[in-house]
Amino acid sequence: MIKVFIIGTGNLGTQLCAAIEKSADESVVLVGYRNFSGRIVPTIQAQIFQNELPDCDLVLIAVPDDKIASVSNSLNNAQVTVAHTSGSADINLLFRFKNHGVFYIPQTFSKGRAIDLSEVTLCLEASNESTMEQLELVASTLSRKRKHINSAQRRQLHLAAVYMNNFVNHCYHKASELLENAAMPTELLEPLMLETLEKARELGAENAQTGPALRGDQQTINKHLDLLKEEDRAMYRAITQSIKHTYGKEL
Amino acid sequence: MIKVFIIGTGNLGTQLCAAIEKSADESVVLVGYRNFSGRIVPTIQAQIFQNELPDCDLVLIAVPDDKIASVSNSLNNAQVTVAHTSGSADINLLFRFKNHGVFYIPQTFSKGRAIDLSEVTLCLEASNESTMEQLELVASTLSRKRKHINSAQRRQLHLAAVYMNNFVNHCYHKASELLENAAMPTELLEPLMLETLEKARELGAENAQTGPALRGDQQTINKHLDLLKEEDRAMYRAITQSIKHTYGKEL
Repeated sequence: MIKVFIIGTGNLGTQLCAAIEKSADESVVLVGYRNFSGRIVPTIQAQIFQNELPDCDLVLIAVPDDKIASVSNSLNNAQVTVAHTSGSADINLLFRFKNHGVFYIPQTFSKGRAIDLSEVTLCLEASNESTMEQLELVASTLSRKRKHINSAQRRQLHLAAVYMNNFVNHCYHKASELLENAAMPTELLEPLMLETLEKARELGAENAQTGPALRGDQQTINKHLDLLKEEDRAMYRAITQSIKHTYGKEL
Repeated sequence: MIKVFIIGTGNLGTQLCAAIEKSADESVVLVGYRNFSGRIVPTIQAQIFQNELPDCDLVLIAVPDDKIASVSNSLNNAQVTVAHTSGSADINLLFRFKNHGVFYIPQTFSKGRAIDLSEVTLCLEASNESTMEQLELVASTLSRKRKHINSAQRRQLHLAAVYMNNFVNHCYHKASELLENAAMPTELLEPLMLETLEKARELGAENAQTGPALRGDQQTINKHLDLLKEEDRAMYRAITQSIKHTYGKEL
């Protein structure tokens, strides 16, 4: 049996706690958690431990990147395995512990929105084989998909996730804003939003590209720039330029 | 009965032909089509007419924007209703015809990929009421959703569609590229891609934003810029700047 302790109850930490508690596999249990506020999280059954660690095998750190070092330094049990959950922090941050690793979940988490982890590939890195086996076992109770990636790959993955989530979402927002400003409902473009995703999955995004930038249609591009607010032009220009560059449509 | 003739057999024109021919409503029929190449399209049952128009009530022009004027000028039947299908061309391009309009479908079309139009809102504009009724009837055989929008709104809608489709797809592509360059499969981020869409639909994109730009986390932003190829930095910077501006995180 692996006894897990989680530090941090932000969106990710809270969902990790819930996912481990809901897991059908009795060989992985949540023995407690800790957070900065000291507030009990009602959705977690396990106990809060603000000072000492309870008996445990694995500490998962789910705190902001710049807090990982201080949180891990505060742990004085060198026998325990310690892993962080960050997309961009190096595994070596945890070098003080013989058994250390990374337990990265490439997904976006929000308050009050439960995520089904079963289709998400959990990305693992470990300082040695026995630690990897431990992380594998915990991961296997959450998802049937796991992958071993090193810190350099994880940094690239995290950067890719920024494009896939933050940047895509901001494009969604800009589209909605344009519709609202012209007194049209956001739902008008939902079928396009869905088809864009389906088409990219089926053909690959590179083969699915269409539009004025791909065609090098400068007349339409100029019309669009005229329609945009000053503050929105730089982003429109930069993405258009990148599409032109990607498909060799630069003048 | 409305007899429809379609000019242009690109992705949109071909799908429009197919959709009208497949429609269960016998009051709208496709009587023929025309294209620039003069090549017969095997998926269309109706006949090709390269020179004269057959007897028809409505001509739908599905050609590139810069060809709409010349195509419509070549039509010498002033009694027929003429509508174009462009997102950005003005309705007044067709002023020569007493009955003219716009039949805009805010969706992305690709060769060989049949689109279900039934959930797409067809956006209509017409020079008079009887023309609108004609367009409404044709539209109603393709989708249960129609909306009347004017040319100014349509221009904004088309611009919004560029964000929702072209720009989103390019972000997908850049994410895939990063994964491939680091020897990771694109599928790794598919659950994130899906959740990004679902979350934006449920919460609204503005409330769904997360990530370093939203947090004003300049340390992570700088790390990302270091990881990117020179040619990709301008786009990363511009989107990040726009997110910061949107959420008041500018320094």
